[in-house]
Amino acid sequence: MNSDWIGYLAAALTTASFLPQAVMTVKTRDTSSLSLGMYSLFTLGVLCWLIYGVLLANWAIIVANAVTFLLAAAILAVKLHNSLRK
Amino acid sequence: MNSDWIGYLAAALTTASFLPQAVMTVKTRDTSSLSLGMYSLFTLGVLCWLIYGVLLANWAIIVANAVTFLLAAAILAVKLHNSLRK
Repeated sequence: MNSDWIGYLAAALTTASFLPQAVMTVKTRDTSSLSLGMYSLFTLGVLCWLIYGVLLANWAIIVANAVTFLLAAAILAVKLHNSLRK
Repeated sequence: MNSDWIGYLAAALTTASFLPQAVMTVKTRDTSSLSLGMYSLFTLGVLCWLIYGVLLANWAIIVANAVTFLLAAAILAVKLHNSLRK
């Protein structure tokens, strides 16, 4: 059985999962229970995946992580804004 | 230049990133600004990555996603518990 399809499903789910969080965070501006440590490390990690995809010229890795990077960076921006305003 | 090292760095960062969120969520029990949609989709997606790693017998994918799955599932459990109690 070709396992690629579950890889694509995994990438789609983990990428899409940040959309509801990004929408909720941008709408409510509430980041009280979001960890700044998580979104800092995660956004940096996704950026590394993006660079890795570019080095391999692998469009699946590039597209999935470019979308995730934008969503995670938006959440991080709201969290940072709230943290700096305290 | 061998690009593997940035792949391992990316995996380490995105895996480790869920530790501060899991600790914060389990400690504070506050999940008000966490999206149930995100953690449901994300936990399912990481489970798919884990199955994908097993199918490929790729230990890096297996270990990274097993750790992420445990952390994300812990966060999802607290979020579900709070949602069901309302």
